[in-house]
Amino acid sequence: MIEHPGFQVEPWCLRETGLDLGVLAQSESVFALANGHLGWRGNLDEGEPHALPGCYLNGVHESRPLPYAEAGYGYPEAGDTVINVTNGKLLRLLVDDEPFDIRYGDLRAHERLLDFRAGTLSRTAEWTSPAGRTVRVRSTRIVSLTQRAVAAIRYEVEALDGPARVVVQSELVTNEEMPAADADPRAAAALKAPLRSEQHEQDGARVVLAHRTANSRLLVAAGMDHRIEEPAGLSTTTECRPDLGRVTATTLLRPGERLVLTKYVAYGWSGARSLPGVLAQVEAALVAAVGTGWEGLLAEQRAYLDDFWDRADVEVTGDDEIQQAVRFALFHLLQAGARGEGRAIAAKGLTGPGYDGHAFWDTEMFVLPVLDYAVPQAARQSLQWRREILPLAEERATVLGLHGAVFPWRTIGGRECSAYWPAGTAAFHLGGDIAAAVIRYCDVTGDREFARGAGLDLLAATARMWRSLGCFDQRGRFRIDGVTGPDEYSAVADNNVYTNLLARQNLLAAADGATGHPDRAAELGIEGAEADDWRAAADAMTIPYDEALGIHPQSERFTDHEIFDFAAFTAKRYPLLLHVPYFDLYRKQVVKQADLVLAMHLFPDDFTPEQKARNFAYYERLTVRDSSLSACTQAVMAAETGHLDLAYDYLGEAALMDLDDLEHNTRDGLHMASLAGSWIALVAGFGGLRQNGPTPCFTPRLPAGLTGLAFTLSLGERRLHVEVGHEAATYTLRAGESMEFRHNGEAYVLSPDAPRTLPVEARPSLRSPGQPAGRAPARRTPDP
Amino acid sequence: MIEHPGFQVEPWCLRETGLDLGVLAQSESVFALANGHLGWRGNLDEGEPHALPGCYLNGVHESRPLPYAEAGYGYPEAGDTVINVTNGKLLRLLVDDEPFDIRYGDLRAHERLLDFRAGTLSRTAEWTSPAGRTVRVRSTRIVSLTQRAVAAIRYEVEALDGPARVVVQSELVTNEEMPAADADPRAAAALKAPLRSEQHEQDGARVVLAHRTANSRLLVAAGMDHRIEEPAGLSTTTECRPDLGRVTATTLLRPGERLVLTKYVAYGWSGARSLPGVLAQVEAALVAAVGTGWEGLLAEQRAYLDDFWDRADVEVTGDDEIQQAVRFALFHLLQAGARGEGRAIAAKGLTGPGYDGHAFWDTEMFVLPVLDYAVPQAARQSLQWRREILPLAEERATVLGLHGAVFPWRTIGGRECSAYWPAGTAAFHLGGDIAAAVIRYCDVTGDREFARGAGLDLLAATARMWRSLGCFDQRGRFRIDGVTGPDEYSAVADNNVYTNLLARQNLLAAADGATGHPDRAAELGIEGAEADDWRAAADAMTIPYDEALGIHPQSERFTDHEIFDFAAFTAKRYPLLLHVPYFDLYRKQVVKQADLVLAMHLFPDDFTPEQKARNFAYYERLTVRDSSLSACTQAVMAAETGHLDLAYDYLGEAALMDLDDLEHNTRDGLHMASLAGSWIALVAGFGGLRQNGPTPCFTPRLPAGLTGLAFTLSLGERRLHVEVGHEAATYTLRAGESMEFRHNGEAYVLSPDAPRTLPVEARPSLRSPGQPAGRAPARRTPDP
Repeated sequence: MIEHPGFQVEPWCLRETGLDLGVLAQSESVFALANGHLGWRGNLDEGEPHALPGCYLNGVHESRPLPYAEAGYGYPEAGDTVINVTNGKLLRLLVDDEPFDIRYGDLRAHERLLDFRAGTLSRTAEWTSPAGRTVRVRSTRIVSLTQRAVAAIRYEVEALDGPARVVVQSELVTNEEMPAADADPRAAAALKAPLRSEQHEQDGARVVLAHRTANSRLLVAAGMDHRIEEPAGLSTTTECRPDLGRVTATTLLRPGERLVLTKYVAYGWSGARSLPGVLAQVEAALVAAVGTGWEGLLAEQRAYLDDFWDRADVEVTGDDEIQQAVRFALFHLLQAGARGEGRAIAAKGLTGPGYDGHAFWDTEMFVLPVLDYAVPQAARQSLQWRREILPLAEERATVLGLHGAVFPWRTIGGRECSAYWPAGTAAFHLGGDIAAAVIRYCDVTGDREFARGAGLDLLAATARMWRSLGCFDQRGRFRIDGVTGPDEYSAVADNNVYTNLLARQNLLAAADGATGHPDRAAELGIEGAEADDWRAAADAMTIPYDEALGIHPQSERFTDHEIFDFAAFTAKRYPLLLHVPYFDLYRKQVVKQADLVLAMHLFPDDFTPEQKARNFAYYERLTVRDSSLSACTQAVMAAETGHLDLAYDYLGEAALMDLDDLEHNTRDGLHMASLAGSWIALVAGFGGLRQNGPTPCFTPRLPAGLTGLAFTLSLGERRLHVEVGHEAATYTLRAGESMEFRHNGEAYVLSPDAPRTLPVEARPSLRSPGQPAGRAPARRTPDP
Repeated sequence: MIEHPGFQVEPWCLRETGLDLGVLAQSESVFALANGHLGWRGNLDEGEPHALPGCYLNGVHESRPLPYAEAGYGYPEAGDTVINVTNGKLLRLLVDDEPFDIRYGDLRAHERLLDFRAGTLSRTAEWTSPAGRTVRVRSTRIVSLTQRAVAAIRYEVEALDGPARVVVQSELVTNEEMPAADADPRAAAALKAPLRSEQHEQDGARVVLAHRTANSRLLVAAGMDHRIEEPAGLSTTTECRPDLGRVTATTLLRPGERLVLTKYVAYGWSGARSLPGVLAQVEAALVAAVGTGWEGLLAEQRAYLDDFWDRADVEVTGDDEIQQAVRFALFHLLQAGARGEGRAIAAKGLTGPGYDGHAFWDTEMFVLPVLDYAVPQAARQSLQWRREILPLAEERATVLGLHGAVFPWRTIGGRECSAYWPAGTAAFHLGGDIAAAVIRYCDVTGDREFARGAGLDLLAATARMWRSLGCFDQRGRFRIDGVTGPDEYSAVADNNVYTNLLARQNLLAAADGATGHPDRAAELGIEGAEADDWRAAADAMTIPYDEALGIHPQSERFTDHEIFDFAAFTAKRYPLLLHVPYFDLYRKQVVKQADLVLAMHLFPDDFTPEQKARNFAYYERLTVRDSSLSACTQAVMAAETGHLDLAYDYLGEAALMDLDDLEHNTRDGLHMASLAGSWIALVAGFGGLRQNGPTPCFTPRLPAGLTGLAFTLSLGERRLHVEVGHEAATYTLRAGESMEFRHNGEAYVLSPDAPRTLPVEARPSLRSPGQPAGRAPARRTPDP
C-alpha cells in the first residue's frame, strides 16, 4: 500500500496538503473532473510537472491497426484508442520572468481540495521563486454538470512580499508531448500527434482551434474565452496557431494586489457534422458559459449536486475512511456517467487513458447497478449507447456465424477491439450482462417506454445470439460450449454457470417482452415459435453441479482440474498473469475474480443457502483477486454467508482501490467498477439489497466495524431511505407512492408517512474460509 | 485440381514438356533439388521469369520480432524465418544482344526432367530470339548428395540456324529482389535484404561472396568456379561486388557449334565459426568439386541413388500414376533429409519458404517413419537435432513452469516461434511425438548407442515434462488437461487420447530406459522413485471413452459438443479456418485432420477391432481434411477397417498433393509429410506394416485398383523385401541374419535364403462411411 500523508479523511471532500511528485500520476486521476462528456485529469494548472496530461471527450478516439504474428478469421483489424484532446486547462505563470514551477524555488504551502458537494477542484499554493519573490496562487476548476460542453477555471495570483511582475499565459494546446509509454512502440507512434489542424481563429480574448483525427475522421474543436478582473496596468495579447491558442495577461502586482482571471473553455466534436457546425457549437457554448458567469456556474453545479446527494447519499458511521471513500466513489461515478448521453461509460471513466479508454462489461455489471438507483438517467443513456451500436454488434454476429448481436468485448466506437479472442470474443457473457442491465434498469425505474423500445431491441438481439450460440444435446439439455466467463484465469470452457444463468434470464425476458409487446415483436420479426424456442432453451439450460463435492463448478469440469499450487507463489509474484502462461492458468483451479460467486450474487434464488455457503468457501480458497472486479462481489457474498468481518475487509479493498492505489495503476485512471463496488459492498453487502423484479429486498446486517449505514435509493418517482443499525433497520419513503419491499424475506408495504423499523438479526461473524497464501484482504476489523 | 499437361506419367522421372507460366511456382517446387543441407528451387537457369526464387541452406534464418496487439506471459518475442541465400543457379544468356527470356521470341521446344535415379534436373529449350536467331540450350543441374556443400550446372548453348554471338553470364547474386509477399508488411521489410556483405573476392573464374545476417548473426558464404569447353574465340571476364559475382563468357557460335560451361557452386555457413574459417570451407569444397569434375559428380550421385533405390524402392503395379508419385515422394524425402546432419527437416524441406521454413511435429510423425526404413542415418540425424536443441527446450519448460523439456512447436533455430499458443505451445503432443520417433527409430534400426545416449536424453526430458504437465486426480487417474491434439480445429481440451497414449508410451519408455541404463540414469539424475513415478503416471493414464456412443472422444467431452453444420458449407468455402472463427471450430465436433484416427494407427493394441471400426466411421464423418497431414492416416485406418477403396482414394490424395497441387500452396514448397504419406498409405495401409518393438508386423491387403505392391525395408543390417498381391504376400530377406516378422498376427521366422509366401485374406471393400458434405476424396476406383 502506498501511503498518502496528504489525503485527509473528511466526509465531503478529498484534501491533499502536501505535494508528493512520486504519486503525482495517481493524484491526477483522483483529482480528475468530468461530467460524462468531458474529462480533465487533475494536472497542475501550469502544466508541469505532470505525470500524464489528459483531456478527454467521451467517444473521441483514434484507430490503429492491431498486429498479429499469426492472424485468424474474424480477428479485429483495428483498435480504438482514446486520445488526449486539446488541453484547455493550461495557465502558465511567470513571476518576474521565473516560470512558476514547483520543482524550483520553494513551495511554502500547497493544498488541493476536491469538493464533492461543490463539484470543484480548488488549489492554493504559496511559492517563493528562486529569485526570492513570493506569490500566492489560488485556482478553482470546474467541469460543468449543467453545461456539458463547458469547463472553467478561476485563477488568482497575489503578490505577497513585494512588487512582482506577473505574466499569466492561458493556453489551448493540441498534440501535447506525452511522456513515453512502455507499450508497443508502433501504437505509440501512431498516436503521437493524433490531431490534424482544420482551423484556428481568434477574436479578442477568445480562441478556437479545430482539428480532425487522421484515421477515425472525428472533428474536435476547443475554444476558450476570458474575463479578467484587472488591476491597473494590465495588458493582454492573444496568439493563435494551428496547435496553440494563447491569451497573455501581464501586470505589475504590488503586495496584496491580485490578478484574477476566469477562463471559460468549451469543447465540441462530431464524426458526422461539418466544421462550421462544430465551430458554431463551441462558440455558442462559450457564449452561454460567459453569460452564466463564474458564480453562476458554481451555483448551478452546487444545485445539481445538492439534488444528487439528496437522492443518492450513503452515510457510514463508525468508519470515517469508508464514509469518505464511498462519497468519493459516488462523486466519480456521477462524473463518469452524468452527461454521457449516448456514449459509453469507460472502465476508467474520463480520468485517464487506461485500457485505451475502452468500455467493458464492468459498466453493465458494476457501474449501472449503482447508477440505476443513484442517477437513473445516466444508466438509461449508457444502455441507449448499446442500442446505438446494435447495428455494429449485428454485423459482428454475422462475421462470427451467429444470429442476433455480439457486442464488442472492449470498444470506444462500437467495433470489437479485443485482439485476444479467448478473453474477448469468447466472453459472450457480455451479451447477457447487457440484457441483465436492461432488465435491472427497467425493474428499478419502471421505465416502460425504454422497456418496450430500446430495451426490447437489446433483449431480442442478445436472445437470438444465445439461441444460435448454444444447442440442445442428445439428452435435451441446452448447452453453451466454449465460452469464457468473468474469471479471466479460465477460458473457453463449457456451460459456465454465470453465463448460462444470464443466458436463461436473457432468453426468458426477451420471450416475455415479445409476448407483452406483440406490435414490437412483429417489428422485430419475432414469431411466436421463436419466443417459445427461447423459453425452451431457457428451461433446458445446463447448470453443472458437482455432486461429489456438493458445489457448483464454475464451468463444466472445472472441479476436475488440478488446484493451482498457490504455495509456490509468494505475494510479490502476483498478478499471476505476469508470471504464468495462460495455458497453465486455464487448465487449473485458480480464479482471478468472482465468477460463480458473482452468479450467486445476481441469481440468489438459484442457489440454496447451503450451496451458497459451500460454494463461497470453495471459491474463496481459489480466488486471487488479480482483478479490481472481485473484492466487492466477495464482500457481498461474504456478508450473505455470514462472514461479516471478511465482507468488511473486502469492502475496504474495494473502497480504497484508488485512494490507496492498491493495484498500482490508478495512474492510468480510476477503476470505475471498483468505485461502484464500494457502494455495492455497502448496499448489497451490508444492506443486503437484492432486486429481481419490481420489489427491492433487504437482508441488512452490519459488521462489528460499522455502527450504522444509511442510503437512499431512487426507484422511479419513489425515493426510499434505509437506515441500518446493529439491531434494527428503518425504511422511510421520502418521495412517491406506497410501495412493497421485503425485509429478511418478509413482504411489507411502506407508505409515505409511515417509516417502518424492523429488527436486524444479530449474527456473530463466521471465520474466514481462507484465501490462497498471501492473498487474504487487509484486515479492517481490529483483533478483539 | 489443376491440370498439368506437361507432367508425363513415367516410373522413374518427372517430365514436363510444356511451360505454363501460370503454374511456374509449383514447378519450381516440384523440380527443386536438395540434399538436406542445400536446396535450390527449380527456377529457370536465366533467373526470369520466376515465381519465387529460392536457394536455402538448412538452418540459415533471420530473426524478426513477433508483434502482439495483446501480449501475454511466455509469448515468444521473435520468430525465425528462412531466407533466400546467395543465388548460385543463375546463368543468363544473351543471343546477339537479345536476352534469352522465354516470355519473348518463340519457345519452340521445352522439356524439363527430374531424374530420380540420376539425381539431376535437366532442361532442353529451343528458342528463336525476337530477331530470328535460334539456339538450343541444354542444362543439367545437380545438388550433390555426396558432397553436401556442392551444386553444379552443366550449361550448353548451340547455335542452330546461323552464326550467333552468345554471352553467358554466370552469377552469384545476394539479396535478390523477391516478389511482393502478401504477408505482414513489417515482416517483409525486415527480410527484404537480409544479408550484409562481409567480404567478396575473385580469382580467375572463381568468385566468393560472404555475408552475415543482421539479427541472427549467421555467416553465409557462397562461391563459384567454372570450367568452359571453349570453341575458338572465347573470351571471359570476372566481376565481383558485395552482392554480385559474375563470370562472363562470350563467343561467336557458328551453326552446330556449342559453348559448354560447367559451373561449380559451393556454400558454407556458421553461427560460430570465423569468416576465414567459413571462406576456407567454401573454397575447399569448390576445389574438391572441380577436382571431382562434372562426370565424377554425376557418377557419385548415381551410385548414391542406386544404393538408395536398392534399399528403399516401392513398386506399385496397376497404377502408374501412384508408382511415379511414390518415387517422386521418396526422392524428395531423401533430398530433404539425406545430409541434414544435425539440422531439422522442415515441413517444406528445402523446396520453398512455406511455413517460414519451420520444422513441426510432421517430421517426427510422418517423415521419420519413412526415413527409419529408407534412410535411417537421416532419421538419426534429425533426432540428433532435437538433442542439440534440448537445452533451449529445457529453458522453455522453465519459462512455462514445467520440468524437463518443452520443444518448440515451430522453429528453425530451436526457439519457439509460434505466436498463437492454443495451436502452438498447447500442442504438447510434440514432446510425445519426438519420444515416439526415438522409440521407433531404435526399434527399427536396433541402434543401441543412440538409445542409451541421445535417445534416453530425449525420453527422460519429455517424460519429466509429462509428469509435471499432468496430475493425479482424486480418483487416482492421471490427467493431462488443457492441451491441443493433432486436430487443429479443437484446442485446449482435457485428456486428448492421442496425447495421453503418447505420454504413456513416453513415460514407460523413459522409465525402462532408466532402468536399463543405470549409469545413464545416474548422469541424468533419475532416481528409482522418479522412474517409478513415471510408471505410475503411465499406468493411471486417463483414456476417455464414451460408453453411450461406443466410441473414444478424441478429447474428454468432445462428443458432448454440437456437430458442426457441414450442410451449411459448400466445398468452395474450405478450408474452414478462412471462414469460421477459432472459437466456433473449437466448440464443435469438426476435425481438421486425423487425431483419434492417428492414435489408432500408432497404438493398434489399445483399441479393439470393433472400436477401430466404430471410431473410424464416427470420425470419418467429422473430418474435413483441411490439412495435408490427414489423408495418409485415413488411408491407413480405412485399409485396416476394411474400406479398401476409400483407402485407395486417400492414397491418391496423399500421393498427388503436390503433383496435382491439391491444396493450392505447392508454390511455397512441397509438403514433406504428405509425400511421406504416400509411402505410409502404401506400406502401412496396404502392406499393413505396424512395428511397436523389434518385430515388424504385416497385414497386407490390396484395393481392387492395384495389382501388386512391393517394398523394401531397411531394418538395421537387414533388408526385408515384401511383395504383396491379392492372394499372397512374399517376404524375402535380402540382407542380414534371420529375423522374426508377423503376418496377419502370426509370428514367422525369415531366413536369408528362404523367402516365405503367405496367403492374403481376400476381403471385399466395405462402403465408405461417408464424409462431411463435399469433402469426400476424389474417387480413384472406377465404378464397376
